[in-house]
Amino acid sequence: MIRHGLAGERGEYANDDDRPLTDDGIRRTKRVAKRLHELGIKVDLIQTSPLVRARQTAEILLSVGLSKQLEPSDNLKPDGALEHWLGWLQSWRQPGRNSLAIVGHEPDLGTWTEQLVWGEARQNLVVKKAGVIGLLLPDDAPVGHSQLFWLTPPRLLLD
Amino acid sequence: MIRHGLAGERGEYANDDDRPLTDDGIRRTKRVAKRLHELGIKVDLIQTSPLVRARQTAEILLSVGLSKQLEPSDNLKPDGALEHWLGWLQSWRQPGRNSLAIVGHEPDLGTWTEQLVWGEARQNLVVKKAGVIGLLLPDDAPVGHSQLFWLTPPRLLLD
Repeated sequence: MIRHGLAGERGEYANDDDRPLTDDGIRRTKRVAKRLHELGIKVDLIQTSPLVRARQTAEILLSVGLSKQLEPSDNLKPDGALEHWLGWLQSWRQPGRNSLAIVGHEPDLGTWTEQLVWGEARQNLVVKKAGVIGLLLPDDAPVGHSQLFWLTPPRLLLD
Repeated sequence: MIRHGLAGERGEYANDDDRPLTDDGIRRTKRVAKRLHELGIKVDLIQTSPLVRARQTAEILLSVGLSKQLEPSDNLKPDGALEHWLGWLQSWRQPGRNSLAIVGHEPDLGTWTEQLVWGEARQNLVVKKAGVIGLLLPDDAPVGHSQLFWLTPPRLLLD
């Protein structure tokens, strides 16, 4: 999971969905993307929230070669339900297609992670903009049974 | 929290407490320590399990300048109780003395983290040898109310 990068101020845009990344957000997100690529991370698909700041983040991840495929998903909009996304995941997963990056929003990414790993959310994960979460989901019953192997803010990922 | 580095095989030593880091474990732990230092991490105290593999790991962290102080603590031995360590922490914490690295063992570090952040342990954190966990503990009632901001295996920390 990757949270979108630094975006423009809330309120400057009539529709919050249209807020783009700032120049600084683009620069920093590019550095995070390159670092993920250097670390050897590749995924079968990047799925993103359709909101502009998320889509831009996902396009940057695509542009450095993290994946060959990108698609938007309404499940990843703010307040999306984990259950809906898990339904989609079950239909998508098959042999040879099992690694995935999703680009979305807070507090959803942190909440989903807590539900996947501990079965309930306490809002006790700190997920910074352009921060990364690494999870392993078992084939069956991922809620409360997934494993967390990575959580990093950009500051502790970049040089 | 930092898990000790790669150590010799269990069974090669009459007393498991005496197992040292392997040459490879020392090399990799030094790289992790240098990286933490490069990231600007400094702590008021490094506390370590007294077991050889942990003590060696802590000495490497000390040698790169992560802290000026190192002390062993029996609370960090395998199967140490979080409650005892929290008792010590309460007495240690004071203004100007609040950042701490602890070097210990699995599954304890993962279990303690889960207890601190979610109040109960499900063994769903993956904590690799020389892996790092970053936590923020509130002054009062840290169990179930601490925040997790970092979890990384060496592979995703080093170049």
